[in-house]
Amino acid sequence: MDYSQMCPRFESATDILGKKWTGKIIHVLLGGPKRFKDIKEQIPEMSDKMLTDRMKELEHVGIVTRNVYPEMPVRIEYELTEKGHALEQVICSIQEWAEKWIN
Amino acid sequence: MDYSQMCPRFESATDILGKKWTGKIIHVLLGGPKRFKDIKEQIPEMSDKMLTDRMKELEHVGIVTRNVYPEMPVRIEYELTEKGHALEQVICSIQEWAEKWIN
Repeated sequence: MDYSQMCPRFESATDILGKKWTGKIIHVLLGGPKRFKDIKEQIPEMSDKMLTDRMKELEHVGIVTRNVYPEMPVRIEYELTEKGHALEQVICSIQEWAEKWIN
Repeated sequence: MDYSQMCPRFESATDILGKKWTGKIIHVLLGGPKRFKDIKEQIPEMSDKMLTDRMKELEHVGIVTRNVYPEMPVRIEYELTEKGHALEQVICSIQEWAEKWIN
């Protein structure tokens, strides 16, 4: 890999992924579609507002899709898109590094 | 991988890596030891204060080491530790994802 210059695509990717909570949210959604409260349950220290903002951003960049099921009461689930699922390798490599290097 | 619960080590890793500029700084340092101004040159939109703060954090968590060479004028270089170099797989997986999914 060429580290002598920054690839604009890499920069865009780190702008998306290098935000507080984003890695954790993607980790949770790799486990399958989830409701807002299910995501919160796995990341309890994140505020509702923060999760709402992050989900909007992730939807905007095509990593997450929001499914609305017209039931009573209405059910809303968040799911990774194909682009989002493709981040599994990134999440796994962070996990592997963490297992080796974080006490 | 088990996505049904968050591993504390993964959480710590994303707390470190999921900060603005960190991915880019590690990318630059994978190219070898660098002086402050050389890092700035590759990430010009980052402020001096931000780079100083990030380098202190990365030193604190053992990802970066700061070498002082007693020359005239004194030369200071930042270098990835073994723990820092081990992040190459993470950076590469982000790069691969970006090449495929970012336009």
